[in-house]
Amino acid sequence: MSEKGTSPPLSASPRTQHGRLREQGSADRADLMAVLRAGFVAHLGLVADGTPMVIPTSYGFDDHDLYLHGSVASRSLRADPDAEICVTITIADGLVLARSVFEHAVNYRSAMVYGVPRLVTDPPAKRAGLRLLAEHLAPGQWDYVRQPSRKDMAATTLLALSLDEASVKLRSGGPDDGDSPDAELGLWAGELPIRSVWGDPVPDPVLPPGIEVPAHIRARSGTEVYPPA
Amino acid sequence: MSEKGTSPPLSASPRTQHGRLREQGSADRADLMAVLRAGFVAHLGLVADGTPMVIPTSYGFDDHDLYLHGSVASRSLRADPDAEICVTITIADGLVLARSVFEHAVNYRSAMVYGVPRLVTDPPAKRAGLRLLAEHLAPGQWDYVRQPSRKDMAATTLLALSLDEASVKLRSGGPDDGDSPDAELGLWAGELPIRSVWGDPVPDPVLPPGIEVPAHIRARSGTEVYPPA
Repeated sequence: MSEKGTSPPLSASPRTQHGRLREQGSADRADLMAVLRAGFVAHLGLVADGTPMVIPTSYGFDDHDLYLHGSVASRSLRADPDAEICVTITIADGLVLARSVFEHAVNYRSAMVYGVPRLVTDPPAKRAGLRLLAEHLAPGQWDYVRQPSRKDMAATTLLALSLDEASVKLRSGGPDDGDSPDAELGLWAGELPIRSVWGDPVPDPVLPPGIEVPAHIRARSGTEVYPPA
Repeated sequence: MSEKGTSPPLSASPRTQHGRLREQGSADRADLMAVLRAGFVAHLGLVADGTPMVIPTSYGFDDHDLYLHGSVASRSLRADPDAEICVTITIADGLVLARSVFEHAVNYRSAMVYGVPRLVTDPPAKRAGLRLLAEHLAPGQWDYVRQPSRKDMAATTLLALSLDEASVKLRSGGPDDGDSPDAELGLWAGELPIRSVWGDPVPDPVLPPGIEVPAHIRARSGTEVYPPA
């Protein structure tokens, strides 16, 4: 896994983007997989008619590739089969409240994957990729609900993006100014964490009575949406 | 506010991207402002050396502009002052659990802003923009902590991006297949919502004893991170 590009500037201060202790870049494959496991929304960046476009989308993955619905990207892929995309997955874990405006930051986990995506057309590979995508979004549903028909498959485009070129950035912990002159201001400083949990299942209003929430869905309620590594 | 580009495909099904009832595009300025108010992490898309790059970053805004730290984007801006960027803010509100894999989706609120950013250099305007950025991230902190020094200001670049070219996409509610043949499968279907709340403030480990958490920080604990409109 190679690193490329620039740190995600989720900090108020340009200084903290350059590798202080609490904010670190990682080229560790395990860190990449942990971010991919924890998140479920990606931001897909592509160039369309010369201008960048950033599109939120769900994703799946295995040890080698990221899988994305290709409806938008496949259009630009058709226009230029060598066009690179960038996919960024970010989880915001909390606010870093420092003693100066300048040192405020966000605690986060972020993965960026770069590359030229491949259109997956081989039916078994496409089905396997869609399964990874569906099961990452909604574990247990592939085997519970109706699986894709031939018509569903034809209406879906799937892209695979190699995980070979990826980088991870993580920030956690308190502010960086505890040992600066600002510490003498006597101000409170610390972190305001975010806790995201799955709520209780809300039945479709048109659902007939007597259909119970399946165990694999009920078990998710109250658990962390973006579990820590 | 003009609309541009393509729907964010946060649904498993390409069909639902095309304006069914529960997923809607909006050109309403009030919807745009509601998404900007509710989120705090943006994904900035730019083209660097011909390839797209998507970078998570915090943001601020007023009625006319989005404000971003410019450390990365300003480099590409210097290389090409007419280079467009795309900034996308997405809030994931829950999973849509349908009767078929194909109809699974994400409930979300998303805003996309396109344009050529301006580097803000005029000191009062820059200070005002940084204040909007800081106060959106951490309300009340601008007046509580040390405000930017001349040195801080010089070390920070600020970009303004007009809100004139923006689009909003929203999806809420249950699955779209309640009136399809799949409804006869007798499967449970509905929504699994996400609830994100600010946790209790965690003091910096090096904080001297006796410094109380200020009221404006304490008051945030237990409140919604991404409040509904």
